[in-house]
Amino acid sequence: MIPGPIEYEPNVLNAMSQPTISHTSKEFIFIFKEALEKLLKVFDAKNALPFILSGSGTLAMEIGTVNFIKRDSKVLVINTGYFGDRFVDLFSRFTKNIDVYRPPLGYAADPVEVQERVRKNEYDLVTVTHVDTSTGIRNDVKRIANYFKDLDTVLVVDGVCSIGGEEFHMDWGVDVAFTASQKALGVPPGLAVGVVGPKAMKIMEKNPPLSFFSDLRKWQNVFKNMLDLKPGYFGTPNVNLITALNVSLTYILNEGMEKRIKRHEIIGESFRAAIKELGLEMLPKESFANTLSVQYLPEGVKQENFLSDAERYGTVFAGGLIPEIKERYFRIGHMGSVSSSEVMISIGAIERALKKNGYNLKLGSGLAAAQEILSKYDFGIPF
Amino acid sequence: MIPGPIEYEPNVLNAMSQPTISHTSKEFIFIFKEALEKLLKVFDAKNALPFILSGSGTLAMEIGTVNFIKRDSKVLVINTGYFGDRFVDLFSRFTKNIDVYRPPLGYAADPVEVQERVRKNEYDLVTVTHVDTSTGIRNDVKRIANYFKDLDTVLVVDGVCSIGGEEFHMDWGVDVAFTASQKALGVPPGLAVGVVGPKAMKIMEKNPPLSFFSDLRKWQNVFKNMLDLKPGYFGTPNVNLITALNVSLTYILNEGMEKRIKRHEIIGESFRAAIKELGLEMLPKESFANTLSVQYLPEGVKQENFLSDAERYGTVFAGGLIPEIKERYFRIGHMGSVSSSEVMISIGAIERALKKNGYNLKLGSGLAAAQEILSKYDFGIPF
Amino acid sequence: MIPGPIEYEPNVLNAMSQPTISHTSKEFIFIFKEALEKLLKVFDAKNALPFILSGSGTLAMEIGTVNFIKRDSKVLVINTGYFGDRFVDLFSRFTKNIDVYRPPLGYAADPVEVQERVRKNEYDLVTVTHVDTSTGIRNDVKRIANYFKDLDTVLVVDGVCSIGGEEFHMDWGVDVAFTASQKALGVPPGLAVGVVGPKAMKIMEKNPPLSFFSDLRKWQNVFKNMLDLKPGYFGTPNVNLITALNVSLTYILNEGMEKRIKRHEIIGESFRAAIKELGLEMLPKESFANTLSVQYLPEGVKQENFLSDAERYGTVFAGGLIPEIKERYFRIGHMGSVSSSEVMISIGAIERALKKNGYNLKLGSGLAAAQEILSKYDFGIPF
Amino acid sequence: MIPGPIEYEPNVLNAMSQPTISHTSKEFIFIFKEALEKLLKVFDAKNALPFILSGSGTLAMEIGTVNFIKRDSKVLVINTGYFGDRFVDLFSRFTKNIDVYRPPLGYAADPVEVQERVRKNEYDLVTVTHVDTSTGIRNDVKRIANYFKDLDTVLVVDGVCSIGGEEFHMDWGVDVAFTASQKALGVPPGLAVGVVGPKAMKIMEKNPPLSFFSDLRKWQNVFKNMLDLKPGYFGTPNVNLITALNVSLTYILNEGMEKRIKRHEIIGESFRAAIKELGLEMLPKESFANTLSVQYLPEGVKQENFLSDAERYGTVFAGGLIPEIKERYFRIGHMGSVSSSEVMISIGAIERALKKNGYNLKLGSGLAAAQEILSKYDFGIPF
Repeated sequence: MIPGPIEYEPNVLNAMSQPTISHTSKEFIFIFKEALEKLLKVFDAKNALPFILSGSGTLAMEIGTVNFIKRDSKVLVINTGYFGDRFVDLFSRFTKNIDVYRPPLGYAADPVEVQERVRKNEYDLVTVTHVDTSTGIRNDVKRIANYFKDLDTVLVVDGVCSIGGEEFHMDWGVDVAFTASQKALGVPPGLAVGVVGPKAMKIMEKNPPLSFFSDLRKWQNVFKNMLDLKPGYFGTPNVNLITALNVSLTYILNEGMEKRIKRHEIIGESFRAAIKELGLEMLPKESFANTLSVQYLPEGVKQENFLSDAERYGTVFAGGLIPEIKERYFRIGHMGSVSSSEVMISIGAIERALKKNGYNLKLGSGLAAAQEILSKYDFGIPF
Repeated sequence: MIPGPIEYEPNVLNAMSQPTISHTSKEFIFIFKEALEKLLKVFDAKNALPFILSGSGTLAMEIGTVNFIKRDSKVLVINTGYFGDRFVDLFSRFTKNIDVYRPPLGYAADPVEVQERVRKNEYDLVTVTHVDTSTGIRNDVKRIANYFKDLDTVLVVDGVCSIGGEEFHMDWGVDVAFTASQKALGVPPGLAVGVVGPKAMKIMEKNPPLSFFSDLRKWQNVFKNMLDLKPGYFGTPNVNLITALNVSLTYILNEGMEKRIKRHEIIGESFRAAIKELGLEMLPKESFANTLSVQYLPEGVKQENFLSDAERYGTVFAGGLIPEIKERYFRIGHMGSVSSSEVMISIGAIERALKKNGYNLKLGSGLAAAQEILSKYDFGIPF
Repeated sequence: MIPGPIEYEPNVLNAMSQPTISHTSKEFIFIFKEALEKLLKVFDAKNALPFILSGSGTLAMEIGTVNFIKRDSKVLVINTGYFGDRFVDLFSRFTKNIDVYRPPLGYAADPVEVQERVRKNEYDLVTVTHVDTSTGIRNDVKRIANYFKDLDTVLVVDGVCSIGGEEFHMDWGVDVAFTASQKALGVPPGLAVGVVGPKAMKIMEKNPPLSFFSDLRKWQNVFKNMLDLKPGYFGTPNVNLITALNVSLTYILNEGMEKRIKRHEIIGESFRAAIKELGLEMLPKESFANTLSVQYLPEGVKQENFLSDAERYGTVFAGGLIPEIKERYFRIGHMGSVSSSEVMISIGAIERALKKNGYNLKLGSGLAAAQEILSKYDFGIPF
Repeated sequence: MIPGPIEYEPNVLNAMSQPTISHTSKEFIFIFKEALEKLLKVFDAKNALPFILSGSGTLAMEIGTVNFIKRDSKVLVINTGYFGDRFVDLFSRFTKNIDVYRPPLGYAADPVEVQERVRKNEYDLVTVTHVDTSTGIRNDVKRIANYFKDLDTVLVVDGVCSIGGEEFHMDWGVDVAFTASQKALGVPPGLAVGVVGPKAMKIMEKNPPLSFFSDLRKWQNVFKNMLDLKPGYFGTPNVNLITALNVSLTYILNEGMEKRIKRHEIIGESFRAAIKELGLEMLPKESFANTLSVQYLPEGVKQENFLSDAERYGTVFAGGLIPEIKERYFRIGHMGSVSSSEVMISIGAIERALKKNGYNLKLGSGLAAAQEILSKYDFGIPF
């Protein structure tokens, strides 16, 4: 139950161990084409270039930004946690003109504030983290993006912890969005994936390349070829993982994006109801993500002991990522093929681990609160 | 959560898909030898012949009995459910002298009553079902077996739903015991396994064979050879399943039989506490098995709807097997690598499915009762 | 390259490691139905009952015979090798009236001789081994069976080493035929499969059962139910192996029986051409099987050394099975998904292993002979 | 039989489909540590930093160079094929000072010539492709590297098609070397791996970073931590592929590097003997790689038809990569767990496909030539 790598469908894992077929075979090209097309549907993107590269979310951040700036471009980072800091680090290699908008800890970015900053400064590119894995805060990308539709500024959405679990549409006004395979797409880690809209594509064509492996000018023909069922090569693709991704995207689209988002909402609500009932404080003050829950431990409960007890009781949770407070909170990932079963297991383990560590609670009370939510929605299994 | 096939460890399933090696190769003979030796430990058997055949529990019943009778031998079936009836059917092909001791529904066999019947009749063979999968009743094999130590009568224990989950020792006085791979041994269905003690072996040598594939006179050299790392052949063994069995037996013995039995006790107790708290009546009046829980549905709850809702909520339970009442009760299997997670998931689904079907209950109350038990024992994960 | 277990398609092995689904689930019943229907096509059977049981070829021999005799029925065994002897052993448990027709070693049964023996004696049942795995001789089942169409005698064909690789049609006059999963059906060992025609079914209904697990009176409703997509139970089926069988049967029928038989013919011919060119003597004098090749080792070549060298060179062959000469010959299995690749590997290893053991040969000459055959047919891959 | 992705050991593929464990778990850190340590042994590296990143050979080229140059550093590319051109493309993003030494097609770089060029120019960095996958030429890295021991110039060896199959030692004078998982390391594509020696590490510390995801300044603490069994994070590692790599490296080191290199030599020699016997011309005039064979097609044989026939006959070969002649030659990869079986299959298919396409040859003659080599060495299976 950590916020990625998550648990996978058996057929996704099975796809991982198929004998690797040639990356230039018709069979693989067909799989690659399918995966790219399905990706466009999951991102709800039209007239956009999808990309799938061997890498991780960290590489996706590079691909999603470096292709759309020049040396010393002016950029704004909307920073609601650990991965905002990382954008600053990334940009520091390519430009000196980096602005940062950092709302107080626990709060999402104010769309009005973003609008004002963007109006005042002619940014070449702005990044926003849809759901920051370190805080569980979900930014209001819909309202933020709306303002970019008429601008030349490229809006980049880091969807690593949201795409596939939270509502998302490229036509909100997003120019570039990306995620990594091991999050809500339900595939083992090893792929950086995303889409690039037409405005960003045009800007890319005008800029000279700042990088090599992440240079989409090189890769775009590979992806366009694959979509036309033709071979293409810039680097050997991760055949097994792309095959697994294709299987997982099939499950995702079979469930349907609307039902899938709703499912994540109910699961998120169940977790929050249980956590509140148990008397724990959430890290976000508002704007809660539905893909993970982030909450403080009660006074006196030592994180290390709590996490190791919970693990013994059957569930692995993640510690904190925000340096100053990383030992005071813990994170529960609930994205992908998550169901009511994971709510029961997790809240059950949390109750027993808290009690074991001296916290005074009524066993079963968190579970009862979660049951009320799950029962209200008549919640069934995802697949 | 049906009473077999159960859920398996990933490495057990992985062993299933290894390229099949030659059944006469040194590598496979070594695996076969290991599996046979570990089986003796799980049955706690000394000076006994272990057996592993392609088949099912139904074949195990034949192997475990037909080798130790003559045409028209006198046999007694201790019948506490569906699988007692099956013994009668089996024996009817080979003998006309079949007695049946059938305690009232919901009750285990009375060891004193067994003793009296055995004293009065010179039975060649007596069968007892340790845990009857159809009722969840556990017979007191320890007390029953004790009386057979000094008799020529062969005591056969059907351990299909107990071995690997309930306490069992051949030296209680048991002559033959068996189970099937898909129950508490944690391997997909396809193997009939068991052990034959010295008394039964001697009797087998004296009797002419009544069958062919199940004839242990033919198979015993195969198993003895394997234990000596020599090839042996009477039928091609199920290479992949035996490899998987060997992996699973390693997990079982690594956990340790004592800890494993204790774990099944705690899980069984948790389930019974929750079921009682929810106001459901158990089918057994006493002598509850720890490997499965069998309970009546509340008045007015239709089994078909309940089972299908529970399945939608993530858990598959089994209906009844006793013909007259099969639609009035349901069965929860909890054997093998079962942990507190399965308790949470199952009770959670039961609560919501009962409520959905009009039963008046306090959501979370069953879970709370189970949590109290699990918390008391500081229950950790099995592996 | 032993005559079973053979090498399997990756997707067949993958099916083996799927999490085991409930044997009463709709999903599994559908798979079971499909496997049964495809089996009828592979056996080219109409109005026949297909069967799939956990077991092995040895159990298939019991199922295929014991259901169609009474105590002390009169039977004839057409014995062309090891598995003929086994039929005699099997029948000895149920009847004293066993006749044996044993052609000289290396020769197939003479259909005329069979006809005469059957005319003179009113046999209840006659068995013939289509291809005897111990000798590589293929009996002319077509001509033999023709004579049984008008008789009450049940003709049982042991198709363990032929069905799926040699031409076979139930309407030749065959009443019962069977094989095991690990032979030309391309699935790991653990299943006994076959079909029973209408004449045999009628006879079965009249006879009292002589056995239990192999009693088709019990199983027939299970298979009939599955074919109607209804649940049925007599013993827990081998869920994973049946799923794998269904995948393999799909490959087989996708290739098409005619093409598949032709492929086995070409492969068989290639092997025989190479073996002849290398100066080795085949065990059969005529009537060569296409599913395996059986040949004597040259004088002075020790079987143990030859087999272990060949294994080091990458190929496992099987030794002999006929007791008197078992160390003088070796067997090459070439059935299932076998292709020209296996011919190249095997003949290559044989050449080098023979040379290593002092046999005087021209390296490459066997390969050249095989190439001529393969090239003549423009032989492509099976799937 | 393409030059990567190659065929994998079943246990390597099995490792791919294990449920993904947390990348911060003790279990995974232990696996990561083991893989890093084994990598050092395969590269025969001491006092060096090993690296494993999600990516491909293309990323490995970036990691292996960009970390050791400054903007507008002076670099030399020793260009013996397609991947030399790629280095030029890579460097063009970071520097204008690129020299290229391109020997005539079919010839390896002359070490004396390299020495002279390096003496005359104070290069910051020189790259050499050990085996160029496009030509099958192996450069004499040992002699080339010797000269760099006393220089400040960083020597980077692209070992993508050599490491794990050709002799290689970092102490020849190599500063940086790398490969990709899908080549002679025997793991599906998706990992860029390599080692960085002390001289290169020092230079890296002095240079400001030019890139982000490939920045070893960021990653080095991750790898150092893992080697100390401590967690570390810059991007989520490819858990499943690293687990598979660890399994494959175990096989490699169990075989032993010396035996493994010798095996590749014999296989390479067998292929070249067969190709010569069949009258085909190799692309390299000298300095043949042992990991792949590259040869021209005979006049009149159309590549497209030849490759598709060979594929139908069971073997996939690769076409050319050098633009001007790419349709006139084909490539056979023979690295990793390759054995005599692959020689037999490949030469067998080549013979038949050439004949099918009108080339006049004696079937079996290439096989005979290969057999002579294999037989001379008494060549056994690798594992």
